[in-house]
Amino acid sequence: MTEAVAARLVRAQGVTAPGGFRAAGIAAGIKKSGARDLALVFNEGPDYTAAGVFTQNQVKAAPVLWSQQVLTTGALRAVILNSGGANACTGPAGFQDTHATAEAVAAALSDWGTETGAIEVAVCSTGLIGDRLPMDKVLAGVTNVVHEMAGGLSGGDEAAQAIMTTDTVPKQAALHHPENWTVGGMAKGAGMLAPSLATMLCVLTTDAVADHAALDGALRRASARTFDRLDIDGCCSTNDTVLLLASGASGVAPAQEDLDDAVLRICDDLCAQLQSDAEGVTKRVTVTVTGARSEDDAFMAARSVARDSLVKTAMFGSDPNWGRVVAAVGLAPGVIIEPDRITVSFNGSVVFTDGTGTPDSREVDLSGPDIQVVVDLGLGDSQVSIRTTDLSHAYVEENSAYST
Amino acid sequence: MTEAVAARLVRAQGVTAPGGFRAAGIAAGIKKSGARDLALVFNEGPDYTAAGVFTQNQVKAAPVLWSQQVLTTGALRAVILNSGGANACTGPAGFQDTHATAEAVAAALSDWGTETGAIEVAVCSTGLIGDRLPMDKVLAGVTNVVHEMAGGLSGGDEAAQAIMTTDTVPKQAALHHPENWTVGGMAKGAGMLAPSLATMLCVLTTDAVADHAALDGALRRASARTFDRLDIDGCCSTNDTVLLLASGASGVAPAQEDLDDAVLRICDDLCAQLQSDAEGVTKRVTVTVTGARSEDDAFMAARSVARDSLVKTAMFGSDPNWGRVVAAVGLAPGVIIEPDRITVSFNGSVVFTDGTGTPDSREVDLSGPDIQVVVDLGLGDSQVSIRTTDLSHAYVEENSAYST
Repeated sequence: MTEAVAARLVRAQGVTAPGGFRAAGIAAGIKKSGARDLALVFNEGPDYTAAGVFTQNQVKAAPVLWSQQVLTTGALRAVILNSGGANACTGPAGFQDTHATAEAVAAALSDWGTETGAIEVAVCSTGLIGDRLPMDKVLAGVTNVVHEMAGGLSGGDEAAQAIMTTDTVPKQAALHHPENWTVGGMAKGAGMLAPSLATMLCVLTTDAVADHAALDGALRRASARTFDRLDIDGCCSTNDTVLLLASGASGVAPAQEDLDDAVLRICDDLCAQLQSDAEGVTKRVTVTVTGARSEDDAFMAARSVARDSLVKTAMFGSDPNWGRVVAAVGLAPGVIIEPDRITVSFNGSVVFTDGTGTPDSREVDLSGPDIQVVVDLGLGDSQVSIRTTDLSHAYVEENSAYST
Repeated sequence: MTEAVAARLVRAQGVTAPGGFRAAGIAAGIKKSGARDLALVFNEGPDYTAAGVFTQNQVKAAPVLWSQQVLTTGALRAVILNSGGANACTGPAGFQDTHATAEAVAAALSDWGTETGAIEVAVCSTGLIGDRLPMDKVLAGVTNVVHEMAGGLSGGDEAAQAIMTTDTVPKQAALHHPENWTVGGMAKGAGMLAPSLATMLCVLTTDAVADHAALDGALRRASARTFDRLDIDGCCSTNDTVLLLASGASGVAPAQEDLDDAVLRICDDLCAQLQSDAEGVTKRVTVTVTGARSEDDAFMAARSVARDSLVKTAMFGSDPNWGRVVAAVGLAPGVIIEPDRITVSFNGSVVFTDGTGTPDSREVDLSGPDIQVVVDLGLGDSQVSIRTTDLSHAYVEENSAYST
């Protein structure tokens, strides 16, 4: 693990930081604003291994259904992503649109010189649920985006911009390992963020040599500890997709532990970027539950606090109203607690212990932008942290006028 | 059931509408505002049967622990209720305060001429979690409130006022049965309202002759269908208490079915009053799930929609963003759905069916104060309705500055 410590994390680089990847992001006219809205990530090989994790919502968008299907091969040559429309709840016609998009990408890449089948192309969409995509614009855009593909960092930048919806900044990160392999990634997502992923798309790339099983293990482990522990509003979208593609271009086959660690660090950093840019955020709140009997208990208790509207509005008001935290813990589904053993701290100050509040508990300063809530259940050794935000006027404003 | 149909529901009357009950509500100085903050409901008999349901939060306030204990006898002579402090998370000292309050009520009633033990006195508290009550004021208030007790409607009015916190209006209702017995009730609660009760206190009274089992059955049945289906913000308090006391003063022993129906109607009406006065409410939203395989499925699906922050902010913006409703149904814990069989309607207009949106689904008018959301799962015959509200700027404002 000494190598991992020495690895270098850079935020100015994304999916094209590893060797063997090209990307592009263009304005195809899907968004009315004229902003970039169509991105392509292309794997030049020599390997094409891939893995993915998807929304746990039973209502899955057409591109999720498609991408789950193509990933059963364990390989991908390209990912096409659009913002400006989720293509969810669009029926069989919406699924046809996704299929046609993948076919168009495959045809354009084949014309460009790399023989590609639609089954090697994952599709991701994000935006309003329920509307069909303007397919004339999408299909014309596919041809253009293939021509625009660049291997340098600018292609990754543009792709990260093209997947933004209510995001205010693009999210990218790359980790350069001293053994000369790299993991890069980009993500989008600002609202509808909850465990079991978020309203998010994320594409990770690496030039490491790794088979599907290695990628799949690294991705599932990292997602469970990062994206699944980001909960902005308890809402989980129909489109969530996280993909990891490996080109093998570095010629280095890292140990599984090193690959796991690198993917985890990139996911963790992208997660922090998603939290910082969440809809209406004025406070970044981390809820940590320690002393739980199991990691499941710690997770459910932390999520109960992180989702509680009264806790979140109190955080917005910089109000150390710890009673709401204790009450939220008491409602965590399936978690047996002993209220008198609970200790709650805000920013390191104990506010509740031995069944009652501490004398200065109402005086704790929560006026800064970062708030640490720690709940020690006093029952065991397991712990989990969940990232969330406050519930602000801006969140209400932004979400009361999204489709209209 | 023809009698039940002819029964008369009146909102200007509450706990003193049935014979055999006195009540009072005074300003004891617990609230800094000087508003009424201490209420007493007293059963003059001849019967003293009672039943109660309490919060399912594992963190229970001292008065809940006390009242659960005294109710094991199935009998109550009095209920003392205070606003201005929840007496929750106050440790053993807080429990002593509750006990001392019950002892003081028993002593004052004994002095007044009715020999009473503390074990016949239920205690309810509501307000901020975590602070001790000002016991000098509570105990002095207990003496005064016993002296103020009145048998007329004014005593019930004052009691209903004295239990208000962020409520803007008192909530009362009485049902006069043609067979000459009556059920009355009062309730408070505006935020922290969720299934498994709400942040609410409710005292129901009747002059019917009914034993503990009859009262308990009627109360549990009614709570499950009313208070448990009111969900303002998914938060469930430490203090929720609903009590039903019977004096037998009418001399009439109604059929269980008639008692059930009367208690249900009063609870349902009080529930509607709680919803209308919820914190920050600008829209009253009813989410109905039909066509479910079981009532549990219908409940979990309706609750998932009713708690969804994105659905609630859309309602605030009068935005028919039905995709958020479909996505919320897809996340209902433990409910297996078939997305293509779902039909969603807003105010009677179908917006989603056969897996996709209807042509005019974005045009549905949601500008009025009442919104009906109906989700037909297309899988069975069970249905459940949950009352909720929108998520507004006023909710955020009110809850971001409560303790400070």
